[in-house]
Amino acid sequence: MPKISERGIEMPASPIRKLVPLSDAAKARGLKVYHLNIGQPDLPTPQVGIDAIRNIDRTVLEYSPSNGYRSYREKLVHYYAKYNINVAADDIIITTGGSEAVLFAFLACLNPGDEIIVPEPAYANYMAFAVSAGAVIRTVASTIEEGFSLPHVDKFEELINERTKGIMICNPNNPTGYLYSRKEMNQIRNLVQKYDLYLFSDEVYREFIYTGSPYISAFHLAGIEENVVLIDSVSKRYSECGIRIGALITKNKELQKTITKFCQARLSPPLIGQIAAEASLDAPEDYLRDTYDEYVERRKCLIDGLNRIPGVYSPIPMGAFYTMAKLPVDDADKFCEWCLNDFEYEGQTVFMAPGSGFYTTPGLGKDQVRIAYVLNKEDLSKALIVLGKALEAYPGKTI
Amino acid sequence: MPKISERGIEMPASPIRKLVPLSDAAKARGLKVYHLNIGQPDLPTPQVGIDAIRNIDRTVLEYSPSNGYRSYREKLVHYYAKYNINVAADDIIITTGGSEAVLFAFLACLNPGDEIIVPEPAYANYMAFAVSAGAVIRTVASTIEEGFSLPHVDKFEELINERTKGIMICNPNNPTGYLYSRKEMNQIRNLVQKYDLYLFSDEVYREFIYTGSPYISAFHLAGIEENVVLIDSVSKRYSECGIRIGALITKNKELQKTITKFCQARLSPPLIGQIAAEASLDAPEDYLRDTYDEYVERRKCLIDGLNRIPGVYSPIPMGAFYTMAKLPVDDADKFCEWCLNDFEYEGQTVFMAPGSGFYTTPGLGKDQVRIAYVLNKEDLSKALIVLGKALEAYPGKTI
Repeated sequence: MPKISERGIEMPASPIRKLVPLSDAAKARGLKVYHLNIGQPDLPTPQVGIDAIRNIDRTVLEYSPSNGYRSYREKLVHYYAKYNINVAADDIIITTGGSEAVLFAFLACLNPGDEIIVPEPAYANYMAFAVSAGAVIRTVASTIEEGFSLPHVDKFEELINERTKGIMICNPNNPTGYLYSRKEMNQIRNLVQKYDLYLFSDEVYREFIYTGSPYISAFHLAGIEENVVLIDSVSKRYSECGIRIGALITKNKELQKTITKFCQARLSPPLIGQIAAEASLDAPEDYLRDTYDEYVERRKCLIDGLNRIPGVYSPIPMGAFYTMAKLPVDDADKFCEWCLNDFEYEGQTVFMAPGSGFYTTPGLGKDQVRIAYVLNKEDLSKALIVLGKALEAYPGKTI
Repeated sequence: MPKISERGIEMPASPIRKLVPLSDAAKARGLKVYHLNIGQPDLPTPQVGIDAIRNIDRTVLEYSPSNGYRSYREKLVHYYAKYNINVAADDIIITTGGSEAVLFAFLACLNPGDEIIVPEPAYANYMAFAVSAGAVIRTVASTIEEGFSLPHVDKFEELINERTKGIMICNPNNPTGYLYSRKEMNQIRNLVQKYDLYLFSDEVYREFIYTGSPYISAFHLAGIEENVVLIDSVSKRYSECGIRIGALITKNKELQKTITKFCQARLSPPLIGQIAAEASLDAPEDYLRDTYDEYVERRKCLIDGLNRIPGVYSPIPMGAFYTMAKLPVDDADKFCEWCLNDFEYEGQTVFMAPGSGFYTTPGLGKDQVRIAYVLNKEDLSKALIVLGKALEAYPGKTI
């Protein structure tokens, strides 16, 4: 039997996915499992998006252009302009989810052995795409005590060497909910400019900023326009994760040409997804306001609730719909597993994402979990009660 | 400005795509361009597939499972059983088109520098996915004189070395339309077994076999069940290229586990595409029969017509919906470009895929073009007339 590739072996298994069978088993035992583990919003997709699909009037579901429909990309130009991101339709390449945008960015920009620096905790799949490209992710740790703010510039500079090709950020951040300030973004800009790095900036949560602080896109930073690779997706914005429509945006013409070759190889992004995504841009203002208001309330409900549980601490996330919370447990991996496998409270339990999966530095995140507030407030409140009871009962509790 | 990766530079640009601007310009000049260049069938998608999309009754377009919906995979088990391919639902991993299946197969099986052997001419994007994975494609040339039959086993063995990890075939073949015989498939089996190689077998055209010869799937070959990676797609079968639904099928449990990690990283194959693909399995028998009958007639129309043009030779393709034809020209790249740029006949011209794009050996395919018969007979007949006139007028003609 021929061997698996080294990259295949190295490929990280999702720390959440390995708990899924336990969650399924818990449900099979009749338990109600509160899914605090995933970034799949329960909020509705805009009706205009669904209607566009339901009204499809085609006899052939044919390939779309490799870089995506021009009509969609032209509408996106106006969408981005509202955020003062000034790009042309040709700067926008439609991808199969934000995932493909990250993969193509790494494949096109990084040689095997090249390094990128990512503040951790970070979205776990960046690592998977780096492994796919043979690239190396070096991490600088942000800390819960400092609210997951940007680590000091010195920490980045310590890691920069001749193999360093880029910095990757997620802003607003998954998993922390942190929003980089103008000062922090300028620090990143200076690093990118000083060392001529790529800045991979995942900004899929820009609609979800709760503090009144300004959203600083990587494209707002002067002097590094050719270095920025913006990663985007409609998945969270319109609660349409399943249509697999994202985008890679760059003003770097050489990179556009290169990414286009990767796009051509896979022929076409999803046709129907583009139809839904394009229509969703016409969602009424109410839609995004209602979604936003709902997350504001859920965030309050969750964070207040978490910080009321003895020994639990969550910073107040400024954006996205996650928080990294600290729990009074010996090992959050074990605790999350225990909740699904060995615990129940009035027929209920909770499924959380262990924090360790978002760090590469061994030992970090051991007492942290990522909690998504993609459930309605009633369920969130119940989940908080269950979490409190679980922490009381857990044999490995530290208070 | 930071550099593009070496792989990004090496990534082949599609030889067809570079002619697209010329085709667009020809249309802008008011010409009717017959698209013989692409594998996008003009035949309708099954109505049940389109209806399934039009009847979507969901409020949230959520992620599907990373390996695809179980209901779809279970229905596929019955579909494959009809072809005597006996696989379980867990052996089937749903991918974003056949393209992603090839990419994941290469990423999971091949280390950078590893080699696979592919008979050429071959589907050009295999090369792109190999470049993405850092793998090397070595080719053994089949010849138009021998009808593109499998090159002699010795030719494969000459190339086999310690870096050789697999053989890749496409059966029925794109671009040649060749169908491997039982004897040829057994020769491939023996090689795979002798050297413990992967056999990547792209069988997306199994519905389109016109000669009564048996379709021998890689999964019909005894003794190499764990070596086979079958690549599949619904794109051509149901004329639904745009929904981006393919599959990777392997009985190798370790490989399943590894491919699953790549699937999890990109979260989900397209949701709506899976709904359409699952429904399409219920297309009435008429649908596939009508499609088949149509291709049979087009094939006859095209091949007869080609072989009637002085100096043109096309073998009779046994399957798929392409042929590689030999033209009496100095350079088919130049001729294809000239047809779009400098020629017209009664306001019409033809767009063909230059043969060189399907070979890696320099010089091969220089007088060949790939012609797809995805146009109706009337258009095919007109295109043949235009092609004949173009060959008469072309300054670089060789007869």
